[in-house]
Amino acid sequence: MTNRLNEIKNVTLMGPGPSTVPKEIYEAIAKPTLGHMDPRFIEIMDLIKTYLQKIFNTENKCTIPMSGTGSAGMETCFVNLIEKGDKVLVLINGVFGTRMEDVAKRLGADVDTLEFDWGTSVVVEDVKKKLDSNHYNMIAVVHAETSTGVLNPVEKIAELLKGKNSLLLVDAVTSLGGVEVNVDAWGIDAIYSGTQKCLSCPPGISPISFSDRALQKLKHRKTKVPNWYLDLSMIIQYWENSAGGSTRSYHHTAPINMLYATYQALRLILDEGLDNVYKRHLEMHKILAKELDALGLSFLVDEGCRLPQLNAMKLPEGIDEAKIRTKLLVEDGIEIGGGLGPLAGKVWRIGLMGHTAREENIKNLIVALKKYL
Amino acid sequence: MTNRLNEIKNVTLMGPGPSTVPKEIYEAIAKPTLGHMDPRFIEIMDLIKTYLQKIFNTENKCTIPMSGTGSAGMETCFVNLIEKGDKVLVLINGVFGTRMEDVAKRLGADVDTLEFDWGTSVVVEDVKKKLDSNHYNMIAVVHAETSTGVLNPVEKIAELLKGKNSLLLVDAVTSLGGVEVNVDAWGIDAIYSGTQKCLSCPPGISPISFSDRALQKLKHRKTKVPNWYLDLSMIIQYWENSAGGSTRSYHHTAPINMLYATYQALRLILDEGLDNVYKRHLEMHKILAKELDALGLSFLVDEGCRLPQLNAMKLPEGIDEAKIRTKLLVEDGIEIGGGLGPLAGKVWRIGLMGHTAREENIKNLIVALKKYL
Repeated sequence: MTNRLNEIKNVTLMGPGPSTVPKEIYEAIAKPTLGHMDPRFIEIMDLIKTYLQKIFNTENKCTIPMSGTGSAGMETCFVNLIEKGDKVLVLINGVFGTRMEDVAKRLGADVDTLEFDWGTSVVVEDVKKKLDSNHYNMIAVVHAETSTGVLNPVEKIAELLKGKNSLLLVDAVTSLGGVEVNVDAWGIDAIYSGTQKCLSCPPGISPISFSDRALQKLKHRKTKVPNWYLDLSMIIQYWENSAGGSTRSYHHTAPINMLYATYQALRLILDEGLDNVYKRHLEMHKILAKELDALGLSFLVDEGCRLPQLNAMKLPEGIDEAKIRTKLLVEDGIEIGGGLGPLAGKVWRIGLMGHTAREENIKNLIVALKKYL
Repeated sequence: MTNRLNEIKNVTLMGPGPSTVPKEIYEAIAKPTLGHMDPRFIEIMDLIKTYLQKIFNTENKCTIPMSGTGSAGMETCFVNLIEKGDKVLVLINGVFGTRMEDVAKRLGADVDTLEFDWGTSVVVEDVKKKLDSNHYNMIAVVHAETSTGVLNPVEKIAELLKGKNSLLLVDAVTSLGGVEVNVDAWGIDAIYSGTQKCLSCPPGISPISFSDRALQKLKHRKTKVPNWYLDLSMIIQYWENSAGGSTRSYHHTAPINMLYATYQALRLILDEGLDNVYKRHLEMHKILAKELDALGLSFLVDEGCRLPQLNAMKLPEGIDEAKIRTKLLVEDGIEIGGGLGPLAGKVWRIGLMGHTAREENIKNLIVALKKYL
């Protein structure tokens, strides 16, 4: 039997994720597997928590990597914090807002939505009006909409909630490690991300953080969390060291090697420095924008709310966009993304996430695109 | 900052999982990350499905790896197949039966249990009596109880259900790849496993298989699956190729590199041959049993229902069992497991799972144990 793994060649991942993985992380993921209760592994767990706190800008004790991809993080936040009948407002301007609505409804939440055109940002004034006349147990918003390349004004939405008894849930899957995410200063109660975007790690882990207020809500639930695998009240007993050292309760077997990769990914970001990382994303975005403009491609999103790390470009009329993406992938070893949902066939999504955000990658992409456009 | 990953040394994992990972799998997990919609990755997905069908002994089309550890597989089976009020019988003789009861109750099932002493097997005659006087929508049983080392008579329990309108759900986390698991011939409707036991792969993926009857139950649910992340009706649209080739629907970003590792792990088993793999586990178990007997250690479990791959040994009185396990780990680089729940401090669990089941490992363990006993 041919081993297909031997045929895999490096692809420069310039789509909406996964992003390009640096060699240090491939080395990390292949380190010898330790037991999930091995004190040497628990030291690595503790460091992952500390590193995540720095990257989320939070002192939340409950800041841990969940054993699933970004969508498992979304599920974790809703299933732990929502009980049947809770009133939830979901702000929607893309696929991932829509997904939040679906997740919340499946859990029996009483969901209200506020929708904005795809490719535009959430309008803070509209949210304010909604909040003036309604009380919600939770407001949920996507920080960086991966489907459109829009950055939503989470800090300003959070300001509207000051003094209100409503939890703020934020999707930071594509924002974490690409633009500022400031959990404590902004006042976010629950947040989740994924490893395969600006953390430049393979997919499979979802970092989350819960504020003390969110943990109080969890603690005072009337019903058990209807999801054993993602029940944080049990999982934190494996991740916390309040009793000191290695006294942890086994919940499920942690994905050891994926956590090695996560550990290494977080270290690389902290070594470079968070501000430098944000700056690099912004600079590379500007270079890319200039080059794409020269090619005659224009942005779906207005300049004021564009994500540096995810560029949604309107397609020139008359091109076979899927065919060009296939050529880029097969002939040039570069992956870019198509549109999702109503934007399918209408945009390309060009990612500059994490390790992908380098000038060499932009140059190679532009050279290749020139062949096909 | 010291990089803790550079300090990790090989440990021979002889506990209840994770098991020792062969070098081919470390090489596989570090292959370059491809996009989750890349046709070359989709070819690997298709092969994983085919390999899993062979190892589960099934033609079930819905035979796929879930993006989470073994417990996510348990959650997947219950959350897709149970609706509020469904009658479920859980057979319990260890931690994982207890976990099944908890998972099912959280989902609103009307759960009945039949309990057996930990360290003994499920008694088929007792199950028969229970089924004679009750109807259940589902009967759930653990094939290989990781907490006690007991092999439960799944084939005989399945026979009791022939002609009955009850689904049979089986936990094969520790059995798959260690002892025979025969999904189609026995008549199992839903089954889940984990990569980190007899598949000798790092933890993080849960292979599952659903029969057509189980899929019918899913299709005719009155309510949506209350778990977006694990909703099989959506996930199979990413994993199936009924339309041919690469026409898949994105659900969540698959854990690419963990799936490379899974692909390689399944190949290694099929290369050796399933029967040879079972035989090796049994032979190694016999060698271990003889050596442990010579050391004066006796089995918790009667010979007729012992798992070759997980040996629960009663502890001699007066020893500090935790101290010895720590010495084994730190000084000899060998991990064995302690007891769980009521068996904590009373047994050791010595695993011979997958790649761990080799004579050299047994010899090293016995040499080390002789120093401490």
